[in-house]
Amino acid sequence: ACYGWKFVRKMKLESSEMDEPNPCGNGLLSSSSSSHIEVQNAHLDEMNNDILYHLGMERCGSSLEDRFGDVRVVVMSGTRLRAEQLANRLISAFKCQLPVGSTLCDLCDTGRYSIYKAAHVLTVSHGVGASSISVLLHEITKLLYYARAKNVRFIRLGTSGGVGCPPGSVVITREAVNSELNPWLMQTVLGKSIQRPSLSSDRLCNDLLNSARDLEGFEGVQVLLARTMCAEDFYEAQGRLDGAICEFSESEKMEFLQKAFDFGVRNIEMESLYFSAFCHKLNIPSAVICSTLLNRLEGDQVTDSPELIQGYIDRAIRVVVHFLKKDHEQAEKEESNRP
Amino acid sequence: ACYGWKFVRKMKLESSEMDEPNPCGNGLLSSSSSSHIEVQNAHLDEMNNDILYHLGMERCGSSLEDRFGDVRVVVMSGTRLRAEQLANRLISAFKCQLPVGSTLCDLCDTGRYSIYKAAHVLTVSHGVGASSISVLLHEITKLLYYARAKNVRFIRLGTSGGVGCPPGSVVITREAVNSELNPWLMQTVLGKSIQRPSLSSDRLCNDLLNSARDLEGFEGVQVLLARTMCAEDFYEAQGRLDGAICEFSESEKMEFLQKAFDFGVRNIEMESLYFSAFCHKLNIPSAVICSTLLNRLEGDQVTDSPELIQGYIDRAIRVVVHFLKKDHEQAEKEESNRP
Repeated sequence: ACYGWKFVRKMKLESSEMDEPNPCGNGLLSSSSSSHIEVQNAHLDEMNNDILYHLGMERCGSSLEDRFGDVRVVVMSGTRLRAEQLANRLISAFKCQLPVGSTLCDLCDTGRYSIYKAAHVLTVSHGVGASSISVLLHEITKLLYYARAKNVRFIRLGTSGGVGCPPGSVVITREAVNSELNPWLMQTVLGKSIQRPSLSSDRLCNDLLNSARDLEGFEGVQVLLARTMCAEDFYEAQGRLDGAICEFSESEKMEFLQKAFDFGVRNIEMESLYFSAFCHKLNIPSAVICSTLLNRLEGDQVTDSPELIQGYIDRAIRVVVHFLKKDHEQAEKEESNRP
Repeated sequence: ACYGWKFVRKMKLESSEMDEPNPCGNGLLSSSSSSHIEVQNAHLDEMNNDILYHLGMERCGSSLEDRFGDVRVVVMSGTRLRAEQLANRLISAFKCQLPVGSTLCDLCDTGRYSIYKAAHVLTVSHGVGASSISVLLHEITKLLYYARAKNVRFIRLGTSGGVGCPPGSVVITREAVNSELNPWLMQTVLGKSIQRPSLSSDRLCNDLLNSARDLEGFEGVQVLLARTMCAEDFYEAQGRLDGAICEFSESEKMEFLQKAFDFGVRNIEMESLYFSAFCHKLNIPSAVICSTLLNRLEGDQVTDSPELIQGYIDRAIRVVVHFLKKDHEQAEKEESNRP
């Protein structure tokens, strides 16, 4: 089971048949097509203030435009520590100088989420699962809307279980599917089910793929553009045999995973579906990139040593840091060329 | 709209018609009926070790029985800080003495969840939403199963939006319902939908209710035993008009909330359904108790001052601390009476 670049190209050819034209996919860095981040809620205009409860911020009196108007990318990871570490790596990669004796700090003091700022990039933590990331997405989008941020892209940078690829692979989500393998989010609004497509942005996915191609030491690493299954929980929904409750057999589990593999799923995680559907709905270019920590066709437990696992996690991070570094340099160049 | 104790009694009379006999509801403190916490997964017996990945613990070589065998209650809250503060309050309430110069520390080092231990009580953080609490429930239950803990009860102690009761009310969940007002969890396992009832334990709910009755300064506080609606997100699923996306009108929102109110729903949060269904499935006596931070029939935003909000949150905490103090004293008495 080895796919690497060859597999990527195959997946891309297959995918070209079904992709819709993506309005978010082009010209994002060009200032001529610059556009403010949008919301789809007329009620917001009628509010005197807006308390972003889980972020511990509010619209009025917070100088949001001064503080966040320059944000162009939001990178979301599961935990506070990963958000903090990524911000520090970006500060180095961008060759930013913080004043002597100062350090990055968490802009969110509620204990629910974390927000760090490294130049034009916010690195934030989203917790576990769709509900957790949904609250963050609503509030961070409103924050950037009030800040009048332009050309903003969202990236989820996470970990996942691989399906038919070795631990330490990097999977960029071509399409997020639910555990019935459908590429849409079923969401309950006012007690009624609605369906929203969960599309990633072709261009951003390809940018990340190209970034991985540039990296040294990635020769043996599988970097795949593939389908990602988004599950509601870590155990039963993902077909794990090691939860506190398990009512299926090993062969039923393998049948479930094999079906997903045959459909082009190469990893399983818990946020991509809501994330992609939300971003697509609001025309925010988005991508999901995850390291895989194990091959689910071979087991359920994450048994590699902490050092190995950290090395796996680091691969997807390196791809994103490299992409953001190039993106930062490009933006600085455009800025200096402006008349 | 004032219900207080009268309302509570009415709800209880109504509810007695529909309650099934609850095998978890009786004799829990009596050592004669003591029972180990259970799992429902035959596969676990075949595993040489079990890595509780999100807790950063494992079964083998961790002396789980020595460290956690005495746990009788797990209290789950949203954030790390609340788990830590509760543990410290319990240490005081139980009149436990930590060695001079020592302090409670987080037993979970993964950054995903937090676990504190105050005598026989674990206080843990579960993050936001069903997926987040599901991972914790599976792993904490396995932890206590391996530790051979006995007569364990789970309590979720949280915050919520009230429906038709003033901010600062305390709602004990008689029955968790989904946003279609059904008292069950629809869960996807191996890509197929299954249904699990979401029942609380009558006895534990009543114990909490009685604990609230004992408290000083609670005369004006509404303490309700009522239905709790569990929503998939904070904005659209709860009928909020202030999300980044909102595709319904204020009158549609009010119709949704009024329907819930008429059905006996008095608060809305995001974890009770999974929590209750999981605990019921594994015969773990469980209860959900939340403070309300606003009245959703009057608005969507949490606008009261931080001091007022902290006071609201503190009410449900005081009920739980008082209950656990009595429970602790009772257990110590039984322990000392043992021949």
